[in-house]
Amino acid sequence: MIYADHAATTRLSPKALEAMRPWLEEEYANPSTLYSFSRNARRAVSEAREKIASAIGANADEIYFTSGGTEADNWALKSIAFRQPNQRGRIITSAVEHHAILNTCAFLERIGFEVTYLPVDRHGIVSCKDLADALIKGTVLVSVMTANNELGTIEPIAELAEAARQYNVLFHTDAVQAVGHIPVNVEKLGVDLLSASAHKFNGPKGIGFLYIRKGTAIEAFIHGGGQEKGMRSGTENIAGIVGMAAALEEHLETMIEDAVQCERLRAKLIDLLRKAGLDFVINSGESHIPGSLSISFRGAEGEMLLHRLDLMGIAIAVGSACNAKETKLSHVIQAIQIPEEYRNGTVRITLGADNDDRQIEEIASGLNRIFAR
Amino acid sequence: MIYADHAATTRLSPKALEAMRPWLEEEYANPSTLYSFSRNARRAVSEAREKIASAIGANADEIYFTSGGTEADNWALKSIAFRQPNQRGRIITSAVEHHAILNTCAFLERIGFEVTYLPVDRHGIVSCKDLADALIKGTVLVSVMTANNELGTIEPIAELAEAARQYNVLFHTDAVQAVGHIPVNVEKLGVDLLSASAHKFNGPKGIGFLYIRKGTAIEAFIHGGGQEKGMRSGTENIAGIVGMAAALEEHLETMIEDAVQCERLRAKLIDLLRKAGLDFVINSGESHIPGSLSISFRGAEGEMLLHRLDLMGIAIAVGSACNAKETKLSHVIQAIQIPEEYRNGTVRITLGADNDDRQIEEIASGLNRIFAR
Repeated sequence: MIYADHAATTRLSPKALEAMRPWLEEEYANPSTLYSFSRNARRAVSEAREKIASAIGANADEIYFTSGGTEADNWALKSIAFRQPNQRGRIITSAVEHHAILNTCAFLERIGFEVTYLPVDRHGIVSCKDLADALIKGTVLVSVMTANNELGTIEPIAELAEAARQYNVLFHTDAVQAVGHIPVNVEKLGVDLLSASAHKFNGPKGIGFLYIRKGTAIEAFIHGGGQEKGMRSGTENIAGIVGMAAALEEHLETMIEDAVQCERLRAKLIDLLRKAGLDFVINSGESHIPGSLSISFRGAEGEMLLHRLDLMGIAIAVGSACNAKETKLSHVIQAIQIPEEYRNGTVRITLGADNDDRQIEEIASGLNRIFAR
Repeated sequence: MIYADHAATTRLSPKALEAMRPWLEEEYANPSTLYSFSRNARRAVSEAREKIASAIGANADEIYFTSGGTEADNWALKSIAFRQPNQRGRIITSAVEHHAILNTCAFLERIGFEVTYLPVDRHGIVSCKDLADALIKGTVLVSVMTANNELGTIEPIAELAEAARQYNVLFHTDAVQAVGHIPVNVEKLGVDLLSASAHKFNGPKGIGFLYIRKGTAIEAFIHGGGQEKGMRSGTENIAGIVGMAAALEEHLETMIEDAVQCERLRAKLIDLLRKAGLDFVINSGESHIPGSLSISFRGAEGEMLLHRLDLMGIAIAVGSACNAKETKLSHVIQAIQIPEEYRNGTVRITLGADNDDRQIEEIASGLNRIFAR
């Protein structure tokens, strides 16, 4: 099997699993208990928090563990919205966000909030001028993703966050596709809130985190026993937390060589497709997640391409990573205005450090064979 | 180490871990993708859902996976609350609920809801008459736990739910302490919503579920990619889901013999303490979770008992399971009106199937030695 859908999820790294093992096999104390048996669990959670904080340039007390990126996104948007219980405000986001943001915004609209969806250019990039124009009175939050899940395109977060800061508006970024893959530093980005998910960087599924800049007034999203300094209750998923920290640490160690490798393979794939004379356009921005390629083939049908490649043992995606069951054109494909004759033939190929040259050749020849028929 | 705090959390069962292994070691596809590599993942999630549904007498499409009991409790309360966005209503609950309920209610009060906290008797039991009296117009939900986490006391849920039904009010039960330990059947109980958590029945931490009776109008709590039929978004924690189902299945197989064993050990412990002449009262109701004992020693200090037992390698609890860092008298201890000279000496000993006679003798002799000083 050739796995080329790393934006959807990634394999749990053996190192991360190794780090998780004690918390699955022997240790099981609830960290919130008072006896000494729970000390190891508390220490493990605390060490994981330190590692994750240092990976994104934050302080440990600014990291809050969640059940994943979607919960972190929901928390950021809904809790900022609920800071003033009976006051409604405006949220500004982009037209190409993940559904974790868009469907949360749709919910907030249903209960009275106003949401502005910023347009994007041909590669999915939000313009700072558009944001500045939209930053009118009553805006409570701006949320723009660090990198797009369908395109891989990296957004100019530092500039966008700076614009929001000038209007004293909080800035959240869904960095689920970015953390572990490109340098993400909350100070350099200037963001107030940042979401991430472990399974996108070879960590376990079911765990993620929300970075909340110290001093940001935000309501808890899940209330209860007071874990995570009262901000995110529920008994800690210790194995998940430890696995996420180990996976992120491992990713950071090899981030540069992985990026070089993924980009080399991506360039090779594009080159092979060009040489084969296939007619396509590339949707990913020039600045993109390494190995991430959104490509539209003229006169083709994305889902047909996916299924034919699947029969050859090649896993790629169409539309959104996390909701690929929808077969209509995704909101991202619609927003970036791909020329009409190419639009329906859009697929997403996202490479990882575990792909190699032979696999790239197979993907290219697989596509070739499909188009040759 | 003698672990007698099974209400706080339990060891991950080797069988459950075995069931999880493929999803940690080899399989990693995102179930929401379209290629064949994800088929196994979808099947695993679907089989787990069937198992869990059948364990509580529900249909598979009434089970929604969450990150744990706390999330399930938050979802039930907040989403029922938000069914009518700008309308506020009344929620009825009990004074002895878990903080996942009480702190969620406190949040709902802050945003305009009214909450009635039903009193309880000496053993923590809610009276049906009190509920019927409280069921006034405008009540949107009743939430009473199946079994209390500090006392083990089992509430008369079927009767309470029947009272709510007569007024056409939805009924939720936090069954986190009950599922896997006593028979829990949503039809016999007549509840509309039920929360459970895997790590209380030897499943993994970070996974739980909410049962939602078919036809119950409830808003999603976490919006996003549309997983769980659009009701709980976020990439599925497959290993956690599979482990939870395996652990519950295993618990059901041995539920009766485990209950007999836990109750025998509990009786033996009480007997040994009596024979030693210790002065105590028992707070747990006559109908309680097998092996669960809330006990108050005259003139003692619960936390002191906990720490001295800890030095002997014995793990027990004071106050609430999940928030034992609070050292003041818990809300449950306050609500059940323990005679004053006993109140401060309250501890919780919760036995499991992995405890044995020798351990019970050690706990008894440990307490004896402490009081002998």
